[in-house]
This record gives sequence, structure tokens and C-alpha cells, in this order.
Amino acid sequence: MAENPPKRQKTSESEEKIECDALRNFKGFKIKRILNQNLSSKSVFLLGNLYSESSPGSAGDASSGTPEGGVACDDADPQSSGNDQAVVLLEKTAFTEDLLPTLMSDKSVLNRSMQNDIYGVYECFPPKELSGIKTTLIYPATEKHIQKYSAQDVHLINESYQDYKNITLPYIEEKQFNIQWVYNILEKKAESERIVSEDPDPETGFVMLPDMKWDEKQTSNLYLIVIIHQRGIKSLRDLSTSHLPLLRNIQEKCLKCIQEKYSIPADELRAYLHYQPSYYHLHVHFTHLKFNAPGTNVDRAHLLSSVIENIELMPDYYQRKPLAYVLRENDGLLAKFREARAGNGQ
Amino acid sequence: MAENPPKRQKTSESEEKIECDALRNFKGFKIKRILNQNLSSKSVFLLGNLYSESSPGSAGDASSGTPEGGVACDDADPQSSGNDQAVVLLEKTAFTEDLLPTLMSDKSVLNRSMQNDIYGVYECFPPKELSGIKTTLIYPATEKHIQKYSAQDVHLINESYQDYKNITLPYIEEKQFNIQWVYNILEKKAESERIVSEDPDPETGFVMLPDMKWDEKQTSNLYLIVIIHQRGIKSLRDLSTSHLPLLRNIQEKCLKCIQEKYSIPADELRAYLHYQPSYYHLHVHFTHLKFNAPGTNVDRAHLLSSVIENIELMPDYYQRKPLAYVLRENDGLLAKFREARAGNGQ
Repeated sequence: MAENPPKRQKTSESEEKIECDALRNFKGFKIKRILNQNLSSKSVFLLGNLYSESSPGSAGDASSGTPEGGVACDDADPQSSGNDQAVVLLEKTAFTEDLLPTLMSDKSVLNRSMQNDIYGVYECFPPKELSGIKTTLIYPATEKHIQKYSAQDVHLINESYQDYKNITLPYIEEKQFNIQWVYNILEKKAESERIVSEDPDPETGFVMLPDMKWDEKQTSNLYLIVIIHQRGIKSLRDLSTSHLPLLRNIQEKCLKCIQEKYSIPADELRAYLHYQPSYYHLHVHFTHLKFNAPGTNVDRAHLLSSVIENIELMPDYYQRKPLAYVLRENDGLLAKFREARAGNGQ
Repeated sequence: MAENPPKRQKTSESEEKIECDALRNFKGFKIKRILNQNLSSKSVFLLGNLYSESSPGSAGDASSGTPEGGVACDDADPQSSGNDQAVVLLEKTAFTEDLLPTLMSDKSVLNRSMQNDIYGVYECFPPKELSGIKTTLIYPATEKHIQKYSAQDVHLINESYQDYKNITLPYIEEKQFNIQWVYNILEKKAESERIVSEDPDPETGFVMLPDMKWDEKQTSNLYLIVIIHQRGIKSLRDLSTSHLPLLRNIQEKCLKCIQEKYSIPADELRAYLHYQPSYYHLHVHFTHLKFNAPGTNVDRAHLLSSVIENIELMPDYYQRKPLAYVLRENDGLLAKFREARAGNGQ
């Protein structure tokens, strides 16, 4: 038996639940697979069996055909072995100021791996008390937990205008993404109290309101969305010379408004469009430059100033330039691209 | 004296340089201040004195009036104590797949801090070998290094080509940034064992090697730098039709090489240039699409495919298009822009 045997509880709904005592270590834990991994935030999400290989001859995991099986969750009740699954979220922790003097002392051990001129690269092994990893254990974990914490592969598509016409546009039209919620905002049927600024001109006008990702408590993570009044402009791909007054109007008025309302100068803001956008009614994102907002990467964001300048340089720029963007493995549009590429023998 | 006394070297330019032996720990290190701290990437950049308090009665730090002084860099030569400054970059490392079985075993110690229903929160103390912190030591560090790694307000500059000619280019030429370390790599005088691939062609060739930000332990945060052999191409701003063979060669060969060596298909990679770059010898970044690498934001990164396509559409695109980028408050270039804008009454 593992060091931390599960115990049985009757819940109010009379469901039987397994709840584990505090684990002392991961003895008996068997990794089934990595659900997700984030290298920039230094985290990894794992799926595993919490009490595998705990006793010789324990029953196999009935719920999975993986060779990693061999689970003995609760010898007293073999039925429960079907839910010995645990999701473990491991996250490296940020450095805290108060512990830096301990870290930067003779208590840390250094191993040098590289030296070039004045640059040396080391591995620093801190004293044990500074090596803690934040660990969240979800046990027993359901399929929903597993899906919630699973990653998807992503792929970079370089979409020519021909691709847009033949693959992307038919896909958008076929799906008929519902943008009634956008019209509700423009018509003041919803969220009207959230509107920060409006220009009612039907050709060059817009509505500006806070994005859901902004807590509105501080301006250092300011995130505003500007939705145009004009309908039928789906994305960047539709823009050309005739839209310059619209784009310039948004740039000028919104920067001015944010300066006045939130005291953020224009050169501390980032104004950009997404391609692909998350909905096909033209809108512009305004975020604080210090805020590393999601969707500001070069594989999705297009600066408003750059869009204006590209059209000034070449009126049909967005009907000629291939545009690269990232699609997730299970995105319907990626499937369409794969079909088309296969059909072309690409 | 500290355990790791600096040693003096005569370089080929007859400059005296301090170079330290491999440090074994941070004994004698004195934190002067936190230059920057990133809670999401779990990193902290410190400024400190490397050999302070190493012997009783050591000389104070002549170069700084901080109370933390007390530096004895090299007892034999008090003059050198002015540059005992070190910049230390500490970054928690991402989890690597091969070490997960060791981590998820009885070798890790768990302390539970919270339990609510099926959710338990723990601190996990891994075995020592898994507790390494990536540490970059820059020693001796100049004011420029200190500035480079300090947190600062940021500003978005939209640089016209006229601005480039009148402000940016003169600034680059005036500063004469030292890129000897780049030539050392190209000439195999340094880091030659790190080269992953090379095309020796003097016009279209390059050297590819891992970026310092890549741990080289797993491919999901792959980060390779491709440095061109041709000299004198400072940045994006110099590129036009004559460079298309170079750019296409890099794109084709590097993607192929990464596919072969690391089994990552082209559509899971991001190839891009920085503008402004951190050094003015043309180089291209290749990172895994899943890796949210620093410098992939729209306000600094330019996809290699996009650069090629823009020049195909318009040979002098990069001599016409305004380019937006972020400059930090104390960047010398920002001061030049401010001067110029003030002179123009802008």
C-alpha cells in the first residue's frame, strides 16, 4: 500500500468520494501523460495515477489501456480503481525579495556551464527551503479536469490572398459566426453602461469599451476594445484605401480619449488588430504597452499604425500580402487548410 | 579574499580585463539592488558586488556611494575596485520531461498548505539535482549592462525612414556597439562547439546556434539564433531585393535543419527578426511556436516570411515603411528622438 492511502467518505449527495490524506511525497505516483507544459511560466500539468504499484500484484487500471496501468487505488473496493486519476499542476514560483539574501549567499551551490568573455552561465542550486514548487493536486480528477488542463498543438499558417478567398472566406461564411452580441453593443441593447467613448458616424464611427480581460482597477493593464459602427468589414483582409478615414479616425480619437480619461500618453499604448480575429466584425485593441496582453504576438497582432501605412504604401496590400497566423490543432479552419493542401498535393 | 578571486588578463587589444574563475557559490556577493523582476516568467535581475566583505578591512567601493559598498575586488590593485559590479540574471527553469519521473517520486518532499474538496495545494521540494536555477553572471558589468537589465518605462516610437536616416543610423554609428563576440562566433574563436549548422557561403551563408535562453534540454522551448556570414547588414532597414537569396536560403535551410535535427515541422516554428535588434549584425531568431519567447511581440518582431514577402511586393519596402518599436525610458536612442522631435516642434 502507498504511504498515503485514500479514505472513503459519504458526501451529502450520498456519492462515495475518495479523499486523500495529505501526501508526504509522490511515492507510487505514475505519470500517464503530460497534459500541458508552459515553458515561459515554467509550469507543467500532469495526469497520473496516485497510488499505482503500491503493492505487488495490485489490479490493473480498468479505465485505461495504457501500459502504465498497474493501479491499486483501494484494495478494499476494486470498483474505485477506475478513478485513481489525479491531475497535478506544478508551477515554479517567482523569486521573493525577502529570500534573495539567502539565495545570494554561500548556501547556494554554483556549477558553471559556459563562459564567453564577461558572460558566464551557471546552474545555481539554492538551499532546500528556497526550492519549493507550487503543486496543486486534483484527486480524484474527472475527464472534465483532464480536458481543462490539456494543451493543444498549434500550427503556423501562412495564408495567401488566394487561400483567403478559397479556404478562409468560405469557412467564415459557412460557419456564420454569431455576432449578434456585437450588434447589441452598437445598438445599446447591451453593455451600454460600459461604453467609454463613442463616435456615432456610421462610416468612420465606433464604440470604445473595456475588454473583459481588464479589471478596470489600474491603468497599467488597460485593455480597451474599439468596435466600428460600419457593418460588413470582417477583418484586415477587407481593408483598402477607402477605409483609411475610418482607421485614422479610430487612431486619433481613441488615443486622445485614453489620454484624457486615463492620462496615458499615446506612446505608452499599443493599438492593434487581430488576424484571425475572434469575431468577424472589425475591431481594434488598445492595451497599455507595459501590459504583456495575450494576442500581442507577431503571429496574431497587426499594429493599427502599420495597417494604415501599408495601405498608404500599397492600396491593395491586404489583398496581396500573405498573412501568417497560429491555429490550434482542433480549429475547424486548420482542417480546411489541410484538406485544401492535400488536394493540391502540397 | 573571496573563494573565486578575479584574475587579470591581457587581451589582444592590450586592454586590461578582469575575468573571474568559475564561482562555486555566492559567498561575498552583496546585493546592491533589484534591477528588474518578472513574476510571470519567474526571473529576477540583480546588481551586486561580486567580492564584497571578502576580508575584514577591505576597501570601500570607490565607484558608488551606496551604503552597501565594502568591496574588495582585487586587493593587489585598488583601482580595479571601481568595477567589481556584477549583474546576475536568475531565472527559474522550465520542467523537463526526462526529469519528471524523478520529480514525481518519493525523492520529492511535499508540504500541504490547503485542502478543499478534491483540490489540494502543496509545496513540493524536489531532490537537489532538480532544483537548479539558471544563472547568468555578467562580470565585470558596465553601466550599459545595468541599464539593459533594469526595469523602465517604455515608449512606442514610430520610426519613418527619414527618422532612421536622421536619428537612428547616426546614433548606431556614433555608439559603435561592440560586436566582436559575433565575429568570434563566425570565425570559430568562441562557441564553435555550440554551432548546430553552418552554411559557409560568404553571401548567403550563416551560422546557427542555440540562444542563451534555450536550455537545450527539450525542443518545446527551442530557441536558435542564425547569424549571417555577410558583414555590414545592420538590420531590417538595410534589406532589399538583393538580399532575397540570403533570406530565402536561411528560411529554407534552417527550417529543414531543425526538422531533421529536432523533428519539429516548419509549421511549429516561428522565424523572425527584431527591430530594433540587440546588436547590429543581421540575425534571425527561430523559436518553437509553443514557446512564448520574449521579443515575439508585434512591437519588436518581424516574421522572416513577412520580410521576404514585403520585399517581393515592394523592393524598397524597408526604406519606405515606418517601423514601430518600443524603447525604454533611458535608451539613448529615445533621447535622440526626443531631441529631434523637440527641434521640429513636434
